[in-house]
Amino acid sequence: MFQLTWFLALSFIIKQTSCELYTALADLKEVLHTESTLINSLDQYIQAEHKKLELLQKYSEIYKQQHTEASEDIENYVANPINAYILIKRLTTDWQHVESLMNMQLGHDYLKNISMYREYLKFPTDEDLNGAAVALTRLQDTYNLDTSALARGELNGIKYSSELSAADCFELGRQSYNNGDFYHTQLWMREADSRLNSETNKTVEKSDILEYLAFSTYKQGNLPLALDLTNKLLEIFPAHPRALGNKGFYEEEMEKLNELKIKGDDESEDIPINDEQMAPQVQYPERELYEQLCRGEVTTDIA
Amino acid sequence: MFQLTWFLALSFIIKQTSCELYTALADLKEVLHTESTLINSLDQYIQAEHKKLELLQKYSEIYKQQHTEASEDIENYVANPINAYILIKRLTTDWQHVESLMNMQLGHDYLKNISMYREYLKFPTDEDLNGAAVALTRLQDTYNLDTSALARGELNGIKYSSELSAADCFELGRQSYNNGDFYHTQLWMREADSRLNSETNKTVEKSDILEYLAFSTYKQGNLPLALDLTNKLLEIFPAHPRALGNKGFYEEEMEKLNELKIKGDDESEDIPINDEQMAPQVQYPERELYEQLCRGEVTTDIA
Repeated sequence: MFQLTWFLALSFIIKQTSCELYTALADLKEVLHTESTLINSLDQYIQAEHKKLELLQKYSEIYKQQHTEASEDIENYVANPINAYILIKRLTTDWQHVESLMNMQLGHDYLKNISMYREYLKFPTDEDLNGAAVALTRLQDTYNLDTSALARGELNGIKYSSELSAADCFELGRQSYNNGDFYHTQLWMREADSRLNSETNKTVEKSDILEYLAFSTYKQGNLPLALDLTNKLLEIFPAHPRALGNKGFYEEEMEKLNELKIKGDDESEDIPINDEQMAPQVQYPERELYEQLCRGEVTTDIA
Repeated sequence: MFQLTWFLALSFIIKQTSCELYTALADLKEVLHTESTLINSLDQYIQAEHKKLELLQKYSEIYKQQHTEASEDIENYVANPINAYILIKRLTTDWQHVESLMNMQLGHDYLKNISMYREYLKFPTDEDLNGAAVALTRLQDTYNLDTSALARGELNGIKYSSELSAADCFELGRQSYNNGDFYHTQLWMREADSRLNSETNKTVEKSDILEYLAFSTYKQGNLPLALDLTNKLLEIFPAHPRALGNKGFYEEEMEKLNELKIKGDDESEDIPINDEQMAPQVQYPERELYEQLCRGEVTTDIA
């Protein structure tokens, strides 16, 4: 039942985002079929690469075994014409085989096949991804959903879907950032950071999260926190070119603010630095009303 | 002691073949050093490829796990906006990572490094290989050495060196073939074939051996055997283009021979078909003398 409400909410939001989204479940089912084909291709590629590596491993073992034998008594080894022939052969004919195996572009061949699938299988685009991310963040606003709970796939304490990885959260933040939505960028980058700390196999780089988080924090008006986050980024990645530039910029801005503060001491209050997350701008009045409706905050006269 | 005799014999023969050979032991020692560098590079490349494959394997497992979850209840899965987002992300951002891993040309990078080694490390050439093969076959003639024993690294029943693989024997045959020495081509291709039968991990294709063996047999004058070997090759590789052409040619030649035989019945003996291996032409009288000396077949007046 809740699932249906979710879906209805999603449908409404998707209608608003208007770009080519996978609104129809049928489309998403087709995408699942595409995924199955891709998994098969990936597995076949991995198997083929393993076979190539097994062959190279055998070459390596033979080389090592014969090389060790030679190293035990180099003088006698190279003085023997059979050994001399085998040694020269290992580094000419045999090595040519090794090089041609190393040169094999199996990945390239498999990708060529996969690109052919694009002609008749449904592949989602970057626009679809952006649409799906926007749909999710709007649903979050509509129902005032807690970011962490949403990332665990939970709604009102019940698990409805897969959990999001740190990388999934990061991508939600990145999509929000690309849409100029720094409020959701902050929310999802923080969630990404929090999830990353408990991941054994890290799905995203902490430095990438910090970069987006710092800049969106600055864009949201919290200069001291943006500087602090940038310093943390520089601890991990001291030569990070954009972080170094931003650090200088934030420090200059902080100085300007402090000067203004000193000047303003005589006649006005401290210039407030917004430490709170700023809510995103509501662009459509009908959407605001719809969200209130969904939250049960509006009653109609009809009853 | 015998080792020294071998080396002296080899030195003499190498002097005769004259091209840039690894006559000096110092050169062969340097080649061993090159080999050690190549083994390291090969191992590093194998390791790097394994890491890449491990990463791809992880992607494959995550894809499979989530795909299986989706397949259990497709309708509900795709109706959930978190699942919808994750599914679309898997096939856009995540798949881009998979594709860039598949596209990585690690082998190409390692080979670029190896080609730089060629500037300061000693690499034997194809000419050196040919020289080493010629040296070995001449040593074989000089001491009337049995091919199979030589392939086992034995001399007079004592093991002096590494054993030759089927591929090593094949290459000796191929080098002899390239030098127009069909006598040694036959000897070593037969040895390659015999060794191949007992190899668990085949080092060469039987069809390649048969092709060289058939043609060198024809060149040595044994037409029926050349045809028989070609038929065997066609059993393995029915569409082999050169074998098909040769078969036709050998059959025509056989017919001509039979006609000559019939015509000759009244007035002469059967035209003999040489079923024996023809010994190679001795080109240098001083070499023949040297070989006789080595075998103790010549005594000097002095003493």
